[in-house]
Amino acid sequence: MPEQDIGTEGLAFAQKIFDDVGAMTKDPAAGYSRQGYSSLENQVHEYIRGIGRELGLEEKEDAAGNLYLTLPGLHRELPALFSGSHGDSVPQGGNFDGLAGVTAALTVIWWMKRTGYTPYRDFTLLVLRLEESAYFGKSYVGSCALTGRLKPDDLKLKHRTKPETLGDAIRSAGFDPEKLVTGTPLIDLKKIAGFIELHIEQGPTLDSHADKRVGVVTGIRGNLRHKVVRCIGETAHSGAVNREFRHDAVLATADLLMRMEKHWEHRLDREEDLVFTVGVLKTSDSAALTKVPGLTTFCIDMRSLSMGTLERFHEVLLSEAERVGKERGVKFEFDPVLRTESAKLDSRLVAHLANSAAAAGIPYIAMPSGAGHDSAILETAGVPAAMIFVANQKGSHNPNESMKIEDFMQGVKLLWKAVETYDA
Amino acid sequence: MPEQDIGTEGLAFAQKIFDDVGAMTKDPAAGYSRQGYSSLENQVHEYIRGIGRELGLEEKEDAAGNLYLTLPGLHRELPALFSGSHGDSVPQGGNFDGLAGVTAALTVIWWMKRTGYTPYRDFTLLVLRLEESAYFGKSYVGSCALTGRLKPDDLKLKHRTKPETLGDAIRSAGFDPEKLVTGTPLIDLKKIAGFIELHIEQGPTLDSHADKRVGVVTGIRGNLRHKVVRCIGETAHSGAVNREFRHDAVLATADLLMRMEKHWEHRLDREEDLVFTVGVLKTSDSAALTKVPGLTTFCIDMRSLSMGTLERFHEVLLSEAERVGKERGVKFEFDPVLRTESAKLDSRLVAHLANSAAAAGIPYIAMPSGAGHDSAILETAGVPAAMIFVANQKGSHNPNESMKIEDFMQGVKLLWKAVETYDA
Repeated sequence: MPEQDIGTEGLAFAQKIFDDVGAMTKDPAAGYSRQGYSSLENQVHEYIRGIGRELGLEEKEDAAGNLYLTLPGLHRELPALFSGSHGDSVPQGGNFDGLAGVTAALTVIWWMKRTGYTPYRDFTLLVLRLEESAYFGKSYVGSCALTGRLKPDDLKLKHRTKPETLGDAIRSAGFDPEKLVTGTPLIDLKKIAGFIELHIEQGPTLDSHADKRVGVVTGIRGNLRHKVVRCIGETAHSGAVNREFRHDAVLATADLLMRMEKHWEHRLDREEDLVFTVGVLKTSDSAALTKVPGLTTFCIDMRSLSMGTLERFHEVLLSEAERVGKERGVKFEFDPVLRTESAKLDSRLVAHLANSAAAAGIPYIAMPSGAGHDSAILETAGVPAAMIFVANQKGSHNPNESMKIEDFMQGVKLLWKAVETYDA
Repeated sequence: MPEQDIGTEGLAFAQKIFDDVGAMTKDPAAGYSRQGYSSLENQVHEYIRGIGRELGLEEKEDAAGNLYLTLPGLHRELPALFSGSHGDSVPQGGNFDGLAGVTAALTVIWWMKRTGYTPYRDFTLLVLRLEESAYFGKSYVGSCALTGRLKPDDLKLKHRTKPETLGDAIRSAGFDPEKLVTGTPLIDLKKIAGFIELHIEQGPTLDSHADKRVGVVTGIRGNLRHKVVRCIGETAHSGAVNREFRHDAVLATADLLMRMEKHWEHRLDREEDLVFTVGVLKTSDSAALTKVPGLTTFCIDMRSLSMGTLERFHEVLLSEAERVGKERGVKFEFDPVLRTESAKLDSRLVAHLANSAAAAGIPYIAMPSGAGHDSAILETAGVPAAMIFVANQKGSHNPNESMKIEDFMQGVKLLWKAVETYDA
C-alpha cells in the first residue's frame, strides 16, 4: 500500500465543510454570524450531524445541545479520545474560529473510515454550543454546561441588542435551560480520555514563520486587569501656567506607560511570557485644547502563562505609579485588580502532541494561547486537554479573519498522527 | 506734607468696588457670571459710570458700549493716557479677571482727585465690553469693535445655550451691531497715547514668590496648534498578539509625548519661552480592555513669546512623530497647523513700567502672558499697550479664582507711579 496522506487527500472534504457552513451563515453585511443557541447554530449542528450519518457514526446530544459523533474503537470500554471545538461565531466574525476544530476532527474520522482504520478506543467529535461572549456577555456556555459549571444567574444575561436572555435563547433553540444549571456535569467526564482542540491562532506569531505554521499550545495565559485606573492631576490654563507649576495627567500617564514598556521589554528579554495593554485611555469630558489636563482614565490588561510574572509585574506597576505620582504631583488610583488564573493544559497530552508533530515531520512552535478556550474549561473540570494552533491571518472576531487551507491541513495531519499514536 | 501712599489709603475704595460688583453679579450656583452685552454687564457699566459722576469725570460711551471716564489733564490737546480692562466674565468665573484692571485705573483717578493732583495729559479709564469668548465663542469683542476689527460674521455667532446671536445680544444691550462692523475704529486711535492694563496673572508664577508679587508683561504668547492629531496603529487581540507584532497607538502616543517633553525641557534649560500641552487625548469609541488600541486622537497647544521657538519646536514634533511612526509601525496624521502670532507690547511703555516699579521700590518679575488680552488687540491696532500682572490664586475662569487685596494694591501703586511719571 503506497503511503497515503490525509494532508492532501482530506483537503477537499474539509474545504467543502468550510464552504457549506460558510454559505449557510454568511452575514449579509460582512463576515459570518453564527449566534450560539440561534436557529443558525442549530442548522450548523444539523449539517455536521448529517455528515456523521453519512459516515455511519454514533450520534448523541447532551441537554445543552452539545453534539457527540463517535467512531467506535476496538476497546469500547475505555474512555474515548475527544476532539472538536465550537460551532458558533461572534457577529460578523470569520468562518474559521471554532469551525476549524470541528472540521479537523471530522476530517480525521473521515480519513479513518476511508482508510478502513479502526482506532484502539472510541474517537468522538465534540461540537460545543455557544463559546463566544459577544452576544450574551458569557463565554464557554456549552463547555460550562457540559462540566456542570453554568450558573443560574448566567441564564439571566441579556442579549446585546434584543430583549432576550440567554435562558430564552437556550429554550428557543429547543433545550431546557434549567437542566443546565444543576451543578452536575451533563455526561460522565471520566469517560473522556482526553480532548484535543484544533483552533486558529488568532494572532500573527505562526503566520510570521515560513515553515512553522502549526503550534502546540503549552497553556492559556491568565490575566491581571484594572478596568479603571485614574490619574488625577490639576487642570490649569495651557498658556498661563508654566511647566514647573503643572500637574499634567496626560504626561504623567505617558510617563508611567513608557516606564512599564521598559519593564515589559526587560521581562521579555529574560524570556518571561507577558503582554501588556492599555486598550482604552481618555481625558475627562471637560478636557480642552487650552487646558492642562487634570485627569486621565484608562484600563490595563496584563497576561502571562505565569501568574508569578503577572503578580511581580503588577507590583512594579503600582510602585512606578507611586514614583511618577511623587515626581509629578499627580495621583494614580487603581480599582481592585481582577485575576483570571492561567490555565495549564495536560502536560502528558501536550507532550504527546509535540512528539506526534516530530513523528509526522511537522515543524511546530510550542506557544501560549493568549485567548481563552473551551479546552481550559474542560481541563479545569479534570478532562486532560491540549490544543493545536494553526496559522491564520488578520486576527479573528472580524470579517477579515483568514486561514490558508494548506496550513489547516498541516494541523489536521498533526491531529491525525496524535490520534493514530495515542495508544501506541 | 507727609508722604501719602495709594497702596494703603486706596484699599478701602478698591475693596468696595470689588464687593459691590461682586454682589451685583454673583451666580446663584457658583462664582460670578457677567455675560458681555447682558443686562448685568450694563449694570456694571452703570455702576462704574456712577462712581465717575461722583468723582466729576467726563464720561463717554462709544457705539459698542465701551465706557470712557476721563480726568482732564493740564494739556488737553495731547493724546490721553488710557488704563482699564473689561467688565465681563466667563460663566461662573471669578470676580477679578477684568474687574481688577477697571478698579485699578479708577483707584488711580480717585487718588489723583483725593490728593488734588492734575495729570500732565488726560487720563482715561476704559471699561471694555465683552472680552471673554465663553458665551459666544468670540474673544475681545469690545476692543475689536473699538479698533474696527469686528467682522459681520462675528455677529452671527450663537450663544452657547440660548437661541441668541452675538448681534442679538448687542442689540438687546442697547447698541446697533451694524455700526460695529464697518471696518473703521469707533474713536480716533491717535488720541490714545498708550494703554496700560492691569490684570490678574491667571497662573501661579507670581504667587510662588514671597516678594515679587507683581509682573511687568513683556509680551503675549503666540501659539501653534493642532486641533486633531491621529495616531493610527493596528487593533489586535490583547492576549493573542505578542509585543513584536503590535502597532499600539497608545504606547506610540506616549512615546511621542515623552520625547516632546524632553525637547521641551531642553528648550527651557536654554531659557526659551515655551509651554506644551496635550489637553485632550482619546482612544477610539470601539477601543476595549481586551484590544491592543489601533487609534488615538489628541490635540496639541504650543505657546511661546517667540514664533521662532514655536516653529522650531513644531518641526521637532513632526520629525519625532515620523521617527516614532517608523519605529513602531504606526502613522501620525496632523490636521493643518493653526497659528496665532505672539503679540509684542510697546517696548517703550513696558520699559516705563519696569522703571516705575524700580522707582516705587516694588519688586517685580518681567514675564510673558500666556493668555490673550484686549491689550494685544489695541497694540496691534497701533495703540502703544503694556500690562501689569498681579499675583492670584487658583487660576481664573473658575469660581475659586482668588486675589489678595494687598497684592492688588501693589499693582495699583505701580500703575500710579507709571501714570505720575509718564510725562516726567
